[in-house]
Amino acid sequence: MVESIPLATATELIAAAEEKATEIENPMVITVANSEGNLVAQHRMDGAWLASVSISRNKAYTAAALETPTHELAEPSEPGNSLYGLQNTDDGQLVIFGGGYPLERDGEIVGTIGVSGGAVAQDRTVAEAGVDRWQELTE
Amino acid sequence: MVESIPLATATELIAAAEEKATEIENPMVITVANSEGNLVAQHRMDGAWLASVSISRNKAYTAAALETPTHELAEPSEPGNSLYGLQNTDDGQLVIFGGGYPLERDGEIVGTIGVSGGAVAQDRTVAEAGVDRWQELTE
Amino acid sequence: MVESIPLATATELIAAAEEKATEIENPMVITVANSEGNLVAQHRMDGAWLASVSISRNKAYTAAALETPTHELAEPSEPGNSLYGLQNTDDGQLVIFGGGYPLERDGEIVGTIGVSGGAVAQDRTVAEAGVDRWQELTE
Amino acid sequence: MVESIPLATATELIAAAEEKATEIENPMVITVANSEGNLVAQHRMDGAWLASVSISRNKAYTAAALETPTHELAEPSEPGNSLYGLQNTDDGQLVIFGGGYPLERDGEIVGTIGVSGGAVAQDRTVAEAGVDRWQELTE
Repeated sequence: MVESIPLATATELIAAAEEKATEIENPMVITVANSEGNLVAQHRMDGAWLASVSISRNKAYTAAALETPTHELAEPSEPGNSLYGLQNTDDGQLVIFGGGYPLERDGEIVGTIGVSGGAVAQDRTVAEAGVDRWQELTE
Repeated sequence: MVESIPLATATELIAAAEEKATEIENPMVITVANSEGNLVAQHRMDGAWLASVSISRNKAYTAAALETPTHELAEPSEPGNSLYGLQNTDDGQLVIFGGGYPLERDGEIVGTIGVSGGAVAQDRTVAEAGVDRWQELTE
Repeated sequence: MVESIPLATATELIAAAEEKATEIENPMVITVANSEGNLVAQHRMDGAWLASVSISRNKAYTAAALETPTHELAEPSEPGNSLYGLQNTDDGQLVIFGGGYPLERDGEIVGTIGVSGGAVAQDRTVAEAGVDRWQELTE
Repeated sequence: MVESIPLATATELIAAAEEKATEIENPMVITVANSEGNLVAQHRMDGAWLASVSISRNKAYTAAALETPTHELAEPSEPGNSLYGLQNTDDGQLVIFGGGYPLERDGEIVGTIGVSGGAVAQDRTVAEAGVDRWQELTE
């Protein structure tokens, strides 16, 4: 069974992320996906980069497909390390830099969030605002 | 510069479409795109088909890329008619059945809406609820 | 050896096609390719459809790849006919409706032209203006 | 509505770039795209590399999709840096070495130019001839 995040919850997480993006003055594209990495909702804020439409979606996909925050994938994917070449697999859907996070309930991943539109630090800050909102909702 | 539909407007159109989809008890995936067919916002209602994630997005793309409602493409694309084979072009992005509509302002296409999730008649009904909302907003 | 059309000639053919497109008031995308179907030059006239960027290029590709005008491919590709399914082959690059033409010199195909942006009859009229210019130049 | 670079302007920029490419004796492929990264015009100079057809187009795409000159992407995309893996995202459309530049008017990106065909230094020199021409035209 695919555990999913309801659309109403997904848009709440996106709203929290958008609020943070507005606060740091960096328009973002924000995607919430289900536990199979398939889209629940995606918003492109006014002025956000076009490339981020694909990248935010694939960050959300990657967090589901490898059940991990995407920023943990960069180091093992470097030349000489164990997963070197990871970013070229899975039909080019994997993103190995930060901004994608699993969303868990009772230790199970039930969805993910992926954010793109700025430097990686900004992407992570905005995505974490969505994760924080998720944690408030599931407490 | 892309004079696009702002995200706030896109989510209003999606809300109007969702309301109609709820009324007819048929969960849908709804996408609003800009005039170049690139995503502004996309929502997958709870229970909507997975295939509709791609189809609704490509209906929105098609309405922009050929500047036409997608239901007008079916007949000319039939075997024996002038555009037979159209559905196999443009990297498989063109959808030739109903549910994609241009959104115009002062005679210019400034965005599109694409809906998928039911029979084509249902898809069109839900998409037209979004188009109607657009027309109210631009009056 | 790949026989090619020089860029200077390609832009002359495109100019002739653009003149015709302007005359019939239908903005078009026009591509000239070499005998391997690879691009020499492509112009998108102001207001031409986005989908035509891909379709005009693939009409030029198809005319080279099958050494035939594309309008001759529709009938054999219909259900029940010998090439049914052709439009799904070659990684989706083949276009089976009119608007792509080989350009010959001494009975050899040395390039192609592909036009998209209107009804098929319009596409063919505009492409043929390019073919006519080619014939004047090679006489 | 896409406020794009008109075709007539695009071919002027390409002509300026071609003149520079001729001067440095390095045939190039030159693409001008609109602000969403979609093609306005593309020319392959006689003798230019086949791979450059795709690369020049994707440099133009990248400059639009990330709103940045492409040469600024190389360093952050190196192993160990924050965007390592960027070149594998967005369906392989992103080029992270030099030769793609945004074209701005009143601080807004209204199009881009992408050049490929030589060493990156040559690509940049030729692309910058197009950017210079753009700046003369918009003064």
